Amino acid sequence: MTASALDPYDPRTFQARTFYDATPRFRDGSDTPRAYLERCLETITAREPVVQAFVVLNEAGARTAADASTARWQAGRPLSAIDGLPVGIKDLLETRDMPTQMGCAAYLGHFPKRDNAAVWALRQAGAVILGKTVTAELGGSQPGPTRHPFDLECTPGGSSSGSAAAVAARMLPVAIGTQVGGSIIRPAGFCGNVALKPTQGAINRGERQATSMSTHGVHAGCIEDMWQVAMEIARRAGGDRGCLGLFGPLEPPAAVQPTRLIVLETEGWCGLDDLSKAGFAQVLDGLQQAGVTLLHRTAHPWIEALEQAIANAGAICNAITGWENRWAMRNLVDEYPDGVSQRAKNTLARAEAMSPEDYRAALLARETAQLCYTRLAPLADAVITLSCPGPAPYWPGDVPGEPLAPRPTGDAVFNYPSSMLFAPAVTMPLMSVSGMPVGVQLMGQQHDDARVTALARWLLGTVSPVVVR
Amino acid sequence: MTASALDPYDPRTFQARTFYDATPRFRDGSDTPRAYLERCLETITAREPVVQAFVVLNEAGARTAADASTARWQAGRPLSAIDGLPVGIKDLLETRDMPTQMGCAAYLGHFPKRDNAAVWALRQAGAVILGKTVTAELGGSQPGPTRHPFDLECTPGGSSSGSAAAVAARMLPVAIGTQVGGSIIRPAGFCGNVALKPTQGAINRGERQATSMSTHGVHAGCIEDMWQVAMEIARRAGGDRGCLGLFGPLEPPAAVQPTRLIVLETEGWCGLDDLSKAGFAQVLDGLQQAGVTLLHRTAHPWIEALEQAIANAGAICNAITGWENRWAMRNLVDEYPDGVSQRAKNTLARAEAMSPEDYRAALLARETAQLCYTRLAPLADAVITLSCPGPAPYWPGDVPGEPLAPRPTGDAVFNYPSSMLFAPAVTMPLMSVSGMPVGVQLMGQQHDDARVTALARWLLGTVSPVVVR
Repeated sequence: MTASALDPYDPRTFQARTFYDATPRFRDGSDTPRAYLERCLETITAREPVVQAFVVLNEAGARTAADASTARWQAGRPLSAIDGLPVGIKDLLETRDMPTQMGCAAYLGHFPKRDNAAVWALRQAGAVILGKTVTAELGGSQPGPTRHPFDLECTPGGSSSGSAAAVAARMLPVAIGTQVGGSIIRPAGFCGNVALKPTQGAINRGERQATSMSTHGVHAGCIEDMWQVAMEIARRAGGDRGCLGLFGPLEPPAAVQPTRLIVLETEGWCGLDDLSKAGFAQVLDGLQQAGVTLLHRTAHPWIEALEQAIANAGAICNAITGWENRWAMRNLVDEYPDGVSQRAKNTLARAEAMSPEDYRAALLARETAQLCYTRLAPLADAVITLSCPGPAPYWPGDVPGEPLAPRPTGDAVFNYPSSMLFAPAVTMPLMSVSGMPVGVQLMGQQHDDARVTALARWLLGTVSPVVVR
Repeated sequence: MTASALDPYDPRTFQARTFYDATPRFRDGSDTPRAYLERCLETITAREPVVQAFVVLNEAGARTAADASTARWQAGRPLSAIDGLPVGIKDLLETRDMPTQMGCAAYLGHFPKRDNAAVWALRQAGAVILGKTVTAELGGSQPGPTRHPFDLECTPGGSSSGSAAAVAARMLPVAIGTQVGGSIIRPAGFCGNVALKPTQGAINRGERQATSMSTHGVHAGCIEDMWQVAMEIARRAGGDRGCLGLFGPLEPPAAVQPTRLIVLETEGWCGLDDLSKAGFAQVLDGLQQAGVTLLHRTAHPWIEALEQAIANAGAICNAITGWENRWAMRNLVDEYPDGVSQRAKNTLARAEAMSPEDYRAALLARETAQLCYTRLAPLADAVITLSCPGPAPYWPGDVPGEPLAPRPTGDAVFNYPSSMLFAPAVTMPLMSVSGMPVGVQLMGQQHDDARVTALARWLLGTVSPVVVR
């Protein structure tokens, strides 16, 4: 199968798989969670051989769980609004019934019999844990085998590669991803998902608390499923230790039209291709036509101050995360010298060249940017920017003997800001560039997850998606 | 050997093992780190059969490390001021050359080939990692076998039982402990150690970042070793992820006389025995005679506000920590139903009765107390209170068929405040009550670790230790 055999992506016509609109038929018996699961499995059978979104599937366990869900719906006693929802879990999170190999040779066959807190919460809500989705190695940049569902020669993005691709290929309505720098919103933007990267700490990371900025998040085919899944996790497992957890209504918040949006360039703007710039300009035009006031960096000195504070966001984020992962990585490389990629070893070498003072400097830069960001709260309802630097790049794989490509899963240049600002971000499939998805994201202040979701819901319902070629 | 065979503890005459004053002889060749280690091992041979401070010793590895240190000192190139220092590591922290069994049957034989970040830093500084010290199960309340060095029928406190006892028995100059609620300062107070529970986040916990309040800390025979070890770790491994790490000079800060100290009662005061109250009053008298102004809770409404905010500190701390450990404990109990104590299962049951809203309420109580504590900064140099509720209690072990004793390693009632306030605390062996040590602690504002150490150094050098019977 070649790329040319695939239809180009058109956000105006693409129908993602959704769950929230299936449940009324579970109630009246005209559909069942088991039948829903079987439809997902049919798509997986058709697409997985080339897309390769999954590390492992647990069809038997999923069918058992779906049958139990079917019985609950038929008895009128579902555990939650997502009872029966088939979900993929990024292979960084522990699952008691499937291995957790983290895309890393050192963890081949690693099978802790434990559930991550979010996985536990999903099971408590009745969700059907169907499989582990491919992650770039240890959530870093060394890619897994997953291919982009709309162009097999391109990366789906990373590190939540399998989660993004599984949703884009209609294999699943929802998959769980994680983001440290740009690992939820970027692949979701490349793949045309809706996705939430929540406020830092808003969804309990369970055993994965090693870094000061990383979140679990939700890839979905629609914003209703995205929100409901996030809340069903948070209402059971809360947030990270020391954090307040996700705020908002249990049901997806109603659409809210923004009055003012700040347009953020980020360090990604300069390197962006012209078609994507043109497409984003059309999206902004659509907003203005709907009555939304847009504030660019020249509109207020505080916006300019934030742009400057995040102009070096990638270096700041990578320094912080590298330092925080340093000891775990050193131990891993010492124990499994051949079990870790050269890319990861290079990251470790950079971290081991740092001192505690370097780390403190990076933290100060992050705190300064957060202060600048907080200042913007009264100026606008939210921030709008791209989710990824244009369409997913071509990725033919590493060539032996050649230097390693620096960013094989694409550049997180539009994502470092939400990560370092601890800001909630929602990506919306509002653009197609050269037949490939390009996401547009809204970012809010910390704990504004529900507000950003409400604004995104309005944009998705009101702004015409843009197609540029 | 019975308790009566042991000499009573007298803080005026007890000579702990110290390291900082041995190093000049390493330089001139009249002593060596290897000989220092052998002296520790002699004491261990004599005392360990009854005290049982260690889970495992690595004499061979320690001797190799001590020989390498000896060569460095003789070449005039020690790696740091603690090069050659024999140190015990609480068995919650991973060590690449010894098992990490956490006092828990489920982890029997658990041997990750990894070093905790602090252990890595100690090795980088040339310290000799001699053994793993007994911890109460998983850092909780189920005791290990360790007995109090000054009365074998009493608990040494916990959860850092072995670290406190090893230093008190002169087996080691330094041992690493950890505190979530009261696991460093309480056993150190019971055992007559000097110890530092640093500002929350000041010393990198490495893989042990699961809870929002817990720290690594240092048990030592003297304040010079205590500070130097803390700084040698922090200058190499920094603080926890997202935290600034320990601040202060590399060398132990010079003694500083306090001008004003706030005397904090905490929820421990009401239940305290009369002898300990009388002893503490004598310590306070000594301070006043030296010219220190003491501020009690009636002296200022802000002090009263703090006392009220921490009046329920134990319940707040236990709720927070229980919730944060909930999923890890549930996974452990599910996998090893017989590998976890009933005490730990009871703690889990309480946590599983909590909702995210209960946890949020506990966080708000903690933040409120922190705000009240911050308000006190301009009023005094530091806070003074007891380190433990009188001398270590009698602990004969659980009796089959009888209800579980609620606090077999003693009550953390004087320690919850420093834990929930994220405050640095130093305990000083300034009292003996009925022949047993009772520590007195100073607490500072966050990041005042060096200041508190300087004040403690002054108290240790100036205030006459008190003996009451």
